[in-house]
This record gives sequence, structure tokens and C-alpha cells, in this order.
Amino acid sequence: MIIVVRQDGSDKLKELESMLTSQGLEVHKVIGEEYTILGLVGDTRNLNVDVISANEIVYKILHVQEPYKRANSMFHPTPTSITVADREIGPGTFTVIAGPCSVESEEQIVTIAKKVKAAGATFLRGGAYKPRTSPYSFQGLGLEGLELLKIARQETGLPIVSEIMSTEMIDRFVEDVDIIQVGARNMQHFELLKELGKIRKPILLKKGLSATIEEWLMSAEYIMAGGNTEIILCERGIRTFEKYTRNTLDLSAIPIIKKRSHLPVVVDPSHATGLSYLVRPLARAALAVGADGVMIEVHNRPEQALCDGKQSIKPDDFDGIMEELKPMAGLMGRSL
Amino acid sequence: MIIVVRQDGSDKLKELESMLTSQGLEVHKVIGEEYTILGLVGDTRNLNVDVISANEIVYKILHVQEPYKRANSMFHPTPTSITVADREIGPGTFTVIAGPCSVESEEQIVTIAKKVKAAGATFLRGGAYKPRTSPYSFQGLGLEGLELLKIARQETGLPIVSEIMSTEMIDRFVEDVDIIQVGARNMQHFELLKELGKIRKPILLKKGLSATIEEWLMSAEYIMAGGNTEIILCERGIRTFEKYTRNTLDLSAIPIIKKRSHLPVVVDPSHATGLSYLVRPLARAALAVGADGVMIEVHNRPEQALCDGKQSIKPDDFDGIMEELKPMAGLMGRSL
Amino acid sequence: MIIVVRQDGSDKLKELESMLTSQGLEVHKVIGEEYTILGLVGDTRNLNVDVISANEIVYKILHVQEPYKRANSMFHPTPTSITVADREIGPGTFTVIAGPCSVESEEQIVTIAKKVKAAGATFLRGGAYKPRTSPYSFQGLGLEGLELLKIARQETGLPIVSEIMSTEMIDRFVEDVDIIQVGARNMQHFELLKELGKIRKPILLKKGLSATIEEWLMSAEYIMAGGNTEIILCERGIRTFEKYTRNTLDLSAIPIIKKRSHLPVVVDPSHATGLSYLVRPLARAALAVGADGVMIEVHNRPEQALCDGKQSIKPDDFDGIMEELKPMAGLMGRSL
Amino acid sequence: MIIVVRQDGSDKLKELESMLTSQGLEVHKVIGEEYTILGLVGDTRNLNVDVISANEIVYKILHVQEPYKRANSMFHPTPTSITVADREIGPGTFTVIAGPCSVESEEQIVTIAKKVKAAGATFLRGGAYKPRTSPYSFQGLGLEGLELLKIARQETGLPIVSEIMSTEMIDRFVEDVDIIQVGARNMQHFELLKELGKIRKPILLKKGLSATIEEWLMSAEYIMAGGNTEIILCERGIRTFEKYTRNTLDLSAIPIIKKRSHLPVVVDPSHATGLSYLVRPLARAALAVGADGVMIEVHNRPEQALCDGKQSIKPDDFDGIMEELKPMAGLMGRSL
Repeated sequence: MIIVVRQDGSDKLKELESMLTSQGLEVHKVIGEEYTILGLVGDTRNLNVDVISANEIVYKILHVQEPYKRANSMFHPTPTSITVADREIGPGTFTVIAGPCSVESEEQIVTIAKKVKAAGATFLRGGAYKPRTSPYSFQGLGLEGLELLKIARQETGLPIVSEIMSTEMIDRFVEDVDIIQVGARNMQHFELLKELGKIRKPILLKKGLSATIEEWLMSAEYIMAGGNTEIILCERGIRTFEKYTRNTLDLSAIPIIKKRSHLPVVVDPSHATGLSYLVRPLARAALAVGADGVMIEVHNRPEQALCDGKQSIKPDDFDGIMEELKPMAGLMGRSL
Repeated sequence: MIIVVRQDGSDKLKELESMLTSQGLEVHKVIGEEYTILGLVGDTRNLNVDVISANEIVYKILHVQEPYKRANSMFHPTPTSITVADREIGPGTFTVIAGPCSVESEEQIVTIAKKVKAAGATFLRGGAYKPRTSPYSFQGLGLEGLELLKIARQETGLPIVSEIMSTEMIDRFVEDVDIIQVGARNMQHFELLKELGKIRKPILLKKGLSATIEEWLMSAEYIMAGGNTEIILCERGIRTFEKYTRNTLDLSAIPIIKKRSHLPVVVDPSHATGLSYLVRPLARAALAVGADGVMIEVHNRPEQALCDGKQSIKPDDFDGIMEELKPMAGLMGRSL
Repeated sequence: MIIVVRQDGSDKLKELESMLTSQGLEVHKVIGEEYTILGLVGDTRNLNVDVISANEIVYKILHVQEPYKRANSMFHPTPTSITVADREIGPGTFTVIAGPCSVESEEQIVTIAKKVKAAGATFLRGGAYKPRTSPYSFQGLGLEGLELLKIARQETGLPIVSEIMSTEMIDRFVEDVDIIQVGARNMQHFELLKELGKIRKPILLKKGLSATIEEWLMSAEYIMAGGNTEIILCERGIRTFEKYTRNTLDLSAIPIIKKRSHLPVVVDPSHATGLSYLVRPLARAALAVGADGVMIEVHNRPEQALCDGKQSIKPDDFDGIMEELKPMAGLMGRSL
Repeated sequence: MIIVVRQDGSDKLKELESMLTSQGLEVHKVIGEEYTILGLVGDTRNLNVDVISANEIVYKILHVQEPYKRANSMFHPTPTSITVADREIGPGTFTVIAGPCSVESEEQIVTIAKKVKAAGATFLRGGAYKPRTSPYSFQGLGLEGLELLKIARQETGLPIVSEIMSTEMIDRFVEDVDIIQVGARNMQHFELLKELGKIRKPILLKKGLSATIEEWLMSAEYIMAGGNTEIILCERGIRTFEKYTRNTLDLSAIPIIKKRSHLPVVVDPSHATGLSYLVRPLARAALAVGADGVMIEVHNRPEQALCDGKQSIKPDDFDGIMEELKPMAGLMGRSL
């Protein structure tokens, strides 16, 4: 860490230096014309940056290292593969998670599950609880939705991914689902993250719609700090001024994650854009850019879906996407 | 609501029309050269927009009305005043909520409470639970913090405002605090909003850092739909590309809220900018733009604050702000 | 176009209606409970939207059609191919434009031109005039830079692409370069666009860093309205809150452009991200998402480049990118 | 400046150090566990940051000082006042620039000029050339507009402010107007800025809609570097995701400019929001936050304005705003 201090106030500077050395840090001082630079050597993790930056002689604090540790590739250079029900998620594979936005009925979820399995999907997604902007919109089937997902799993063998909404649901989700999804709006629901750190179940952590890549990795760090290290990151677009799409999918985030972290990362083109005709080209681009998988919304009757039908594709289109992805996965050195 | 449909597919159009009329709506059709426009008359609140927009002949759906009802000034033209411990929050008053980012000790919170009361603040704020980006940062004193806030209330008579983090804390917060704050990161924690709708305690609802004004009002609507109508909105900046400030305070939001809603709205310049020297000018601007109050971070020793010291001002500066606000409140027709 | 008017003020409504019909439009009225909807049939292109929206009884104006005409695929459904020096840019090909950020010397530009040609690039890029945030940064060699580009063209046969900065330079650019680039900061330099509409030379139009897709197409429309229809669009990232990358490359824009417009579109991953290690994965993603080409910064000695070395790749890396793109181009049905 | 380099590659580090010392800089080295920090003492202005950051051993470059010099309050601590036709713009005054978006006719501009003068405005604004998103929108009267502005100036004595669009217009603008406005879309039209640095006429420099405060000051620096130091900054909102307003007015920028720079700064609430009912509260907020003035769009018949009528207020409303601003200016220590 580097602390830039103003030239005036030498007493305050002495106080600051002795505080820093008392914490076991070496302080190297470079005296410039307008500012003095303090270069700190040692473990600065426990330093309270807020306290230091509030010091009136401090002009700027410059961070040399990334603030995440367990999620950081520097301390864990080998890419992590996560195994869920005998399926590997990570380098060498391309995971396809498919299914409807929300579970609506047994017939619906089982039909879709069979279709996406036949096309080659390896996980089934489906929402039992739905975060909706309006209190007047369909909120999901709740516990009944989880039961229906379990039936679909039994019928197809596909492990299931579903979104958790609050801490009270954790026990039930650990029991029922194979991967617990944390939605974009909950990426900084820190109480939830802490509790998920205590369990042993893979977490699919979506990027918040206004989160930076660093904040996203810090949210993974929250869960990992608790001991649960099986995190799959999921890019799903950020909020920008562009109006054609619901959000702007940031595919640059994938190679950045690959460089900065060891965690696997997948892409959700359906929620990112909100437009079904963009799913196919963006699924191809996700594979080409180096993602470990995609999550795609598939509904047998999009025009009757109880939520987000506009972004859902039909099973036939899903077949087409899978056909396009297969040869490209070969080029990328991934099995599909 | 207006539905724009493509010219082709007349069978599908008939189906759509009969679905709409079956829901008790009048459908008025305007046939253009490239598109047909359906103007709907009647209550469209229960219409599933997702279903309609997923229909392949539908090109666009255009909303005429705002989606919020209970928060909407159209259906409730008189501005709402909320009374908390004999203090009015709303038209004619200017509420000043002051206190530290987080409660650190009895001595700290009582000292600050006395100082801000002497300067004219009418509410005390203080965090017992703190949402922090890093799991390694100070997370607040928790329940002990609530106890210390109650001591400060007893010593000064100031009602207290504190942030809730998850649904399990609700009973305790109803018991202990006077206004329950929902933080920016939880603005769309819908399970929490639904539960807060069931209680009878005023809620201070901060705008999410990537929320639109409409989404913010929809979050108020969530709470109001449950029956709890005492909502105080709080503008605290949105995330933009600007780097000097932590967030960009959107003061235009205040007169917009005043036009679109009947709810009172206050401004938090401390969290919005993250820089203490901006608090004073922005507090003046908040009053001038028509806000019903401000929320200001005050710490007796900012350079030792356990969080966000950089944005805290000292009690002396707070006195100065209050002195500047008083004559300006007179011009604005508000008592302070 | 749809105009939503408030219920009150029937005289003003009559005035508005007669104004609209006097312009040759049919006005269809749908009277709702709170609003009246006017559906307009006919050519609304010459209607002054500003005048109408300023009318106090007007609540909202809703646009049914896109505002661009000549750039719109609705009126020109066949994708446009642009031929420059016997090279086709558009469907079926994948154009690779490569070269340094700025031209620095004859030795530099000729060396790089030879290398990128050997690797398979079909156009040479190089800046003679550079838009720099700081007046103290290197501003480009100017006219001398254009001369050196011409030498490199002669040596390699590669047509050249270079950025124009203001209207006075147009004659010289028409004379010297094969494709005139309009940079992101000039995307709404309307005087320049108007003048470029009068010439006959292909234009590479970069998206502005805060431009919507609609505004980008409207800037193409400015040039096309003048009669110059040979426009190649270039996506180069938009400004967001994310800090790891310089800008956020919006690859969703490519399939959107392909749906809304007939113009060819290429991607510039170098300027979008500002980081050389992101160029290769994003070039692959650009191809996979359906772009007609890429523009890549290549410098023989990035660590000595006079501008933007951090985002430049070396000729060897460029070879590697080309090797990866070739089989993928085959899958995408494009020749490289 | 601080350069953080990776631990490996000691030969490259030696090369870098000797390059830096050869430029007259002192290099202080702090060797950490994972990185080495180079603190530079001396004038780093001529250092090519691009070259250094492209060096493969360089991990990060951290800037201690702001990149602007002539616009920086550190080197020019006294606030600048600019005198135009005997009117002071700067500390102690509150400048009101009012008039229509575009000049439409002699009758229009003279009528409005007389009204705003009577209400207390001290400058007349009016567009002769208009930057419009669509080539099919009204583009302004051009030279005829300038002539009409001169007539209005003669009739009222109000100095005139008008927007320039390209370098060829400079001579004419120097001749005709009192303050040359550079619009938001031209804030980084660097060729224009360079040419404006060569003249002696005050410049009103609007902030670009996606410009950071630092980039805005760097654009001022471009003009000042050429020798023209009479710059008035104008905040007019930035592009964000919020949809109610055209742009988000950033009033925090005003006290930041006051701290970082010595230049006067005014606020344009009309263009920032695009909504006339927001002009009054935001004009009050601009005064309260410390701005040196406001620029307000006034039209005698907004519903017939040829551009931007929706954001224009009527002369009567303008009277009302001036009445509200007067006592508040007194509190702020400014004459109006």
C-alpha cells in the first residue's frame, strides 16, 4: 500500500508513521516537492483504510495489491474445477445450464428438462422464488417450485440450479438443489453471503448489475472467507445508458476473471440482454472469449411464460445453439 | 397501455385481442402502414406484460401510466407527513438526521448525540450492522450497537435511525429503533421489503446505487402494498463513471419525487460523495432543491472512525452547517 | 408516432389535432380514463417533436419507428458490402485492419505493415492525427504521418485507414487514404459528418463512448443523408463504471446492428479495453458474435510506442490471433 | 508519480531506472514482497506514460498529482474573475445567462431578450448553429442567427453567448459574440480547443456528457495551454442509466471545481434535465451549492419553439425564478 501525504503537518506524519510501524509494517519515505510518499512493506490486510484516509494530512491512498485473497489467482494459480454430480465445471469443459425463468407447473418443467437434456444441456435451471421489480408481478411458486424441480431432476437426471432469496431459505436449498444461485440483486446481500460461507454446497454467484469486477470478487471472498470455496461466477450484464438491451453484457470480464482469479465463470446472455434473438450470437461469443459455460433461458411456450418470456428461446432454437457450439468448443479445447 | 404489433400474422392478432378483451379491457385499433397500434382502455394492472411482450407479433409495449399506485401522487395528491416521536417529517419542516457511520462505544455515541442535538439535529443515526464490501472490514457491533443507541436516545431524547440487514432482525428493530433504514444495497431485497410491509414502523428507504427513480418508487410500493405506508425516501447517489466522488448525488430526483409521489424525501450527501468537504455545500443544495431533510455523518474523531471517516464531519463543522441552513430554511418556508 | 395527452384542455387538443391533420396525418383517438391516446398514421418524419412535446397538454410521445431511414434494414433489407481496393467488407468475409496507434517513423510503419500483411491483415491502420486527453501528450505526426502511411501502402499493397480530426482535413484525406476513420470523440461532430456526406470515400464510423446504438446509427444517417452511403460501423466500447478496462466493449451491439441496419460493422478490442491481453479473446468473440471484422493495434515495440503501448500487441501475438481466427472464420461462414 | 513493477526482470528494471534518471528524475525504490515501488521526485510532466505502462514489468502507474496545471488551484490559488462587457463572472456575483435554445426570428429573440433583461438576466444566450442528433431536425439559422443576436444585443445592451460548431467559424464568432460557447459534444474536439487557445475571447466550456471532471479540466487546459485563459466552465449533466431526465446534473462537481481549480463555473439546469419544471429548483440548488451562475432556457412560446421547447420556461416563470434567487444570493454573499 502507498500513502501520499501533504507536505505540512510533520507531527501528524510522525504519529501516522509510528502507528504504521506499530502494526509491524516497514515504512519507506520518499519526500517530493509537494507530497511525501509512504511505501509500506508487509501485510497490510488488517490496516483500517478508512481510519487512514480520514487523516487530514493524507491526500491519497494507492493500493498495489488486489483486496481479495482466496479468490485471487496470485495465491492460487491453478484454475479451480468444481464437481457437481459427476460433472466438472471449469477448464476443459463447457457447461450448459438451461431451463425456464420460473417453474410454473410439473408438466412445464419436466417437458423443458427433457428437451434441454436431449439437446445436450448438463444442468437444469428454474426459479422457485423470483425477484421482481413490481410487487404486483408473479413472484414464483416458492416451495412448490422446488418440489417440481426435484421431480424434473428425477425424470432426467439433470442436477438443478435455483435462486435463493434470503437467509431463512438456506436449509431447504442445501437439501433440495445442486447449485445455489445468488442473484444479481443479492450480490451484496452480505448477511446471505456470510451464511452461505458456512455451508458446503456450490454457489453460482451472479454479478450485480452495478458491481465492478473487484466488488464481484469481494463478494466471492465473503463466501470463501467462511470456508465454502466452491464458487462459480456468472456474468449477466451491467447497467449502462444503452436502451436497446436490458443490460450490457461485459464479455471482457471473462478473460479478466481468468487472469485475476482461479474460479470458473459462466455467462448468462438471456438475462443480460432481455432479448431472445441475442442469445445465440452471445452464447457463441461467451465460448469464444473463454467462459466455462453458459446459462440459457428456455421455455416451451415463451409467449405464455409467467416471467421474462421475451428473453426465452424455444427448445428448437436451443437445439440450434447447441449444434453451433459443439464444433466451436472443439476449437476452444473444451468438451461439450 | 399501448401495444404495437407487426402487420403480418392476423390470426395471432385476433388471439391477442380476444385475450385482452377477455380480461375486461377495451381494445382500440389504429392500423398504420408498417404497424398496428392497440390502445387499451381499462385497468391493465393485472395484465402480464411478460407474456404479451414474448408474443412474436408484438413489436413494442408502451406504458402510459406509472407502474406504482400507492406511492403515486396521482392517486394521493396531498403530500404525506410522517410523525415520529412528535416530530413531523414532510412539507413545512426540514429534518436533520445526524450521527456516526457506525456505533463504536457508549462514550462515542453519547458524545456525538449530545453534540448534534445541541446543534439542532432532530434524529440520531448510527449503524449497528454495517454492509461492507470486504469481509475483512469492521462489520459493526451488532446487537450491542443497538443497545448503545438506546442509551444515547435516553440521554438526549433523540429518536434513532439504524440500518437493518436481513429479515431475521425485524422484530428486534421494531422494538428498538424509531425509524428502520433500508440501505442502498438492500433496496431490491424483496423478501425484506415484503416483511417490512407487515409491520407498523416508519421506513427510511435509500435509493439503490444503480436504481432508477421508478424502481425506487416500486420498492416503496412493495412495502406499501403490504400495508405499511410510512416511507421516507432517501437519495444517496447513483453509480456513474465519475471518479472524484464515490457516487453521483442526483438532486434532480428530489423535485421529480415531489411531482410523482406524495412521500417525503431526504438527502444523504455524506454517503453519496464519500468526501467530507462536499457535505456542507450539498446539504445547502438539498434544502434549496426542495428536500424534506438531510442525513449527515458526524464523528467526533473522523481520523479514528472505524468506517467511512473520510466522509464524516466534526461536530464543529456540523454546527456551521446548521447555522447556514437556518436562514435558508426560512426562505424555503420550512422550520428547522 | 403516438401522442399521449392529458384529459383536460379540450381546446388545446383540438388545436393539436388540426395541426397534425394539416400536415397530412390521420389522427386516431383512443379516449382512456386518465389519458387520451392519439395514434398517427402517415409520414411523421417532418413533424417537429420538440414543438409537440413542449405542448402543456402532451404527457408523453412514444415512437413506434426507428428514427433512422437510410441506415435502417427495414427499408434496405439486404446487407451492404463495401468494396475498397478489391477487398469486400461485409457478409461472407472477415476484415482484419491492423497497425500501430500512431505513425512514428517510416521504419516503424513499414516494418509493422509488412508483418501484419504477412500474418493476413487486409488493411493497415495508423494515426497521423491523434486525439489526446492531455495537450501535453504526443499529438501525432500530422501530414508527415499521412506521407509515411502512403509509403507503407506502396511497399505492401495494403489500403490504409486513418482518423480525420476536423473539416479542413477532408480534401487531403480523400486524396491520401482508402478509408476515412471518424473517431469516437467526433461521432457527434455534426459539421464533420455533414461534410463527409458530400464526398465519395468509405467512412469507418466509431461509436462514441457515451453514444447509444440509436445515436450511432443517426450519425451514420447524417453522412448517408448527404449521399455518401459507404459506412462501416466500428464498436469500440462505451463508458461505464467498471474500472479494470478503459471502456466496456458492447458485443451485443453487433447482432443488434445486424438486425436493425444493413451496414457492415467491425470491432476494435484494443481501444475498447486498453489492455493488450484482452485483444485475443475479444477478437475471437467479435468473430463469433457475427462482426464483419476487427481492428487491432499492433506495434513492433509496444514499450516504446508513443501512444497507447499498453493496448498494443506484438507482431508475434498478432500471428497467433490470426491462426486462431482462421478455423473459427470457417465455422462462421466467412473467409479470412 | 509512482511506478509499481513486478519482482522479476531485474535487467528491465535497471533499464527503466536509467531511462527515468536520464530525464532528470530522482528514483526512490521501495522493495516489497511481491512488487517494487518506484517513487519519482521531479517534474514528470514530459514523461510518456504510455511508453512506461507498456513496459511488461510495469504493473501499475499511480498518479500523485492532477494532470492539469494552468487550470489547477494549486498553482493559482486565487479564484479567477472574468470580466465581459463590464460584468464580472466569478466570486461575489451570480451570473444569469438566459435566452432561447435557438434563434428563430428577430421578433422572437428581441422579445425574449427584453423580457429576460427586465427580470435581471445579465447575458443573452441563443443558438445560431444547433448540434442535433438527427440530420432531419432544425439545424439553426446559421449566420443569420448571429445577425439577429447582434440586433438583440443592440436593443438591450445584453452581451451575447452562442455556440460554435467548428474551426472555420472562429473568426466570425470572435467578431460577433461576447462569449463563445463550446458545447458538450465538442468538449473533446481537440482541434477546435487548440484554435480557441489562440484567440482572446472568453470561452464557456460545457462538460461533455460522458466526461469526467478531470477530462473537463484537461479540455480547459488545452485552451489555456494556447494562451487563452478566460474559461468559464459549465456543468450540464452527465449520461447515466436514469430515464426520467435527459441527463443527470452533477451538482457535486461545483464544489469539486472550486477546490481543484480557480476557474468560474456555472450550471445549465435546462439542458441537463430536459424538463422545464426542474429548472427552478435546480437553479436554486446551483446557487446554494456555490456555482457562479446559471444558464437558463427561456422561450416566449415554448410550445412553438423549433428545438427543445420541453425544457424551456416562459418569461413569467423566469421572473419567478429571479425573485427566488435574489434573497438566496444575499445569503450566499453574491450580488445578482
